[in-house]
Amino acid sequence: MSFSHTVLLVAMRAEAEPLIGELRLKKSRSPWAPHLPMKLFQGKRGRSKISLVLFGKDADHGIDVIGTQAATIAATIALDKLKPSLLLNAGTAGGMQQFGAQIGDVYLATKAIYHDRRIPIPGFDHYGRGNYDLKKGHVLVKKTALKKGTVSTGNSLDYVTRDLEIIQEHEAVMKDMEAAAIAWVARLYKVPLIVIKSITDIVDGGRPTHEEFLENLATASQNLQKKVVEILSEITH
Amino acid sequence: MSFSHTVLLVAMRAEAEPLIGELRLKKSRSPWAPHLPMKLFQGKRGRSKISLVLFGKDADHGIDVIGTQAATIAATIALDKLKPSLLLNAGTAGGMQQFGAQIGDVYLATKAIYHDRRIPIPGFDHYGRGNYDLKKGHVLVKKTALKKGTVSTGNSLDYVTRDLEIIQEHEAVMKDMEAAAIAWVARLYKVPLIVIKSITDIVDGGRPTHEEFLENLATASQNLQKKVVEILSEITH
Repeated sequence: MSFSHTVLLVAMRAEAEPLIGELRLKKSRSPWAPHLPMKLFQGKRGRSKISLVLFGKDADHGIDVIGTQAATIAATIALDKLKPSLLLNAGTAGGMQQFGAQIGDVYLATKAIYHDRRIPIPGFDHYGRGNYDLKKGHVLVKKTALKKGTVSTGNSLDYVTRDLEIIQEHEAVMKDMEAAAIAWVARLYKVPLIVIKSITDIVDGGRPTHEEFLENLATASQNLQKKVVEILSEITH
Repeated sequence: MSFSHTVLLVAMRAEAEPLIGELRLKKSRSPWAPHLPMKLFQGKRGRSKISLVLFGKDADHGIDVIGTQAATIAATIALDKLKPSLLLNAGTAGGMQQFGAQIGDVYLATKAIYHDRRIPIPGFDHYGRGNYDLKKGHVLVKKTALKKGTVSTGNSLDYVTRDLEIIQEHEAVMKDMEAAAIAWVARLYKVPLIVIKSITDIVDGGRPTHEEFLENLATASQNLQKKVVEILSEITH
C-alpha cells in the first residue's frame, strides 16, 4: 500500500533532527496561525510527499512543547491544513520491563490508552480510558521488524501509583505523553495512524525517569530514525 | 470595552442548553471537518455576534466529550475558523471549601494551572504547571458580581493525593477539566479569554465527586447562564 502524503508528528527537536537529516527535509512556511510553535519540514520520497510537523518551542520557557495538549493542536492543524493520507507519530517512551521492554527497543503500537483520565461515571469511564485501536495503521507495517504492544499516554513524565495500576491492568508496554491524543484526533478525521516509540527509560525499574530519559534520548532517537525510514520505504514508492 | 465577535466554549450539553435558550442562539453549519463532534450555535446581541461552540457527543460512548484534549480541539478550531475577538469558557467545576467555595457559587478565574502535568526537568516543570495569567480576560468583567480565584485543570473527575497537593500549593479554589487547555490555546492565538465556572461539588468535602456533580449540574448550569448573560451585557452593545 502506498500513501501520497504522509505527515510525521514529532514532539521533541532531539527526536526530529535525525529524521529531518536522513530524509533531507527542508523547512517550509507553515500554513497555520503564525504564533503557534509548530514547525513544518517537507520533502519527497519517490513520488510521495513527506511532511514533518515538529511541535516546536514554548515561548516562555524555551523548551519543546510536549504532552497531550500540544499533540492535540499539532494533530488538528496537521490534519486540517495539510490533509495527509497517513499520519505517523514517531517519538520516545518509557518501557515496562515486566512486559518485556528494554532501553533501545523500538515498538509499533497496536493500541493507545490513557492512564490519567479517570472519570468514574458510566460511559465517561470508557471515553476517559481511550482504548484507541491502531489497527488501521499498524497493519500497514509488514516488513520492518518491530516489537508490538499497547502505549499508555499521560501528561506527566513521572507517575503516581494509580497511573501505574492502570498501565499494568492494560498490560501497556510503553508509557508516553502524546500517542492517545494523536490517536483520537486521527480517528475523528478518519486518517490512519502509525505510532512508533523508541524506549528511553524503564518505568518499573529503579531509576528516576528524567535521569534515564535525558541520558538515552539521543541514542533512542537514532534507533527511531532508522525504523521510521524503513517504514517509509514500505509505504511510499 | 466591546467585542464584535465572542465565542463561548462550553463542554457539556447540560451547561450549554440554558445559554442557547436565553441567548436565542440557532444551530449553524460548522466550518470545521464534518466528523468532529463540536457543534456551532450562533446569534446576535446588539451589534455583536455571539457563537457558542458545544464540544458535542462521543460517537462511541454517546456522552459529552470533556477534558483537555476535547477542549484543545474546540479552542483551536474555534480560533482558526471563527476568528473571534474574545473567547469565554463557561462551565462547571469542583470547589475547594478550604479556600471558600460553596456549591452554587459562580467564579471568575484569574489564573489557570494544571495539577496533572508533572515533568520534573527544569523548564519543563514550569511549562507543565501552566500558570496561565487570565488578566487580559478577567479585567473586562467590571460590573458582574463574581467570586475570583485560580482554577486548576486535570483530565480526571476524581483526584489522587498528588493532584490535591498541587491544587493546595497553588491555592486553587476551582478544579475543572478544560480551563488551562483553553487558556494555552487562547494565549497562542493572542485572543483574550474569560473563564467562568459554577461550582457543582466540593472537592475537599466528604462525598464522591461524581455523585454531587450529577446532582447539582442542572442548578449550577442555571446559575452559570445568569452570570454569563450579565457579562455579555457588559462586553457587547
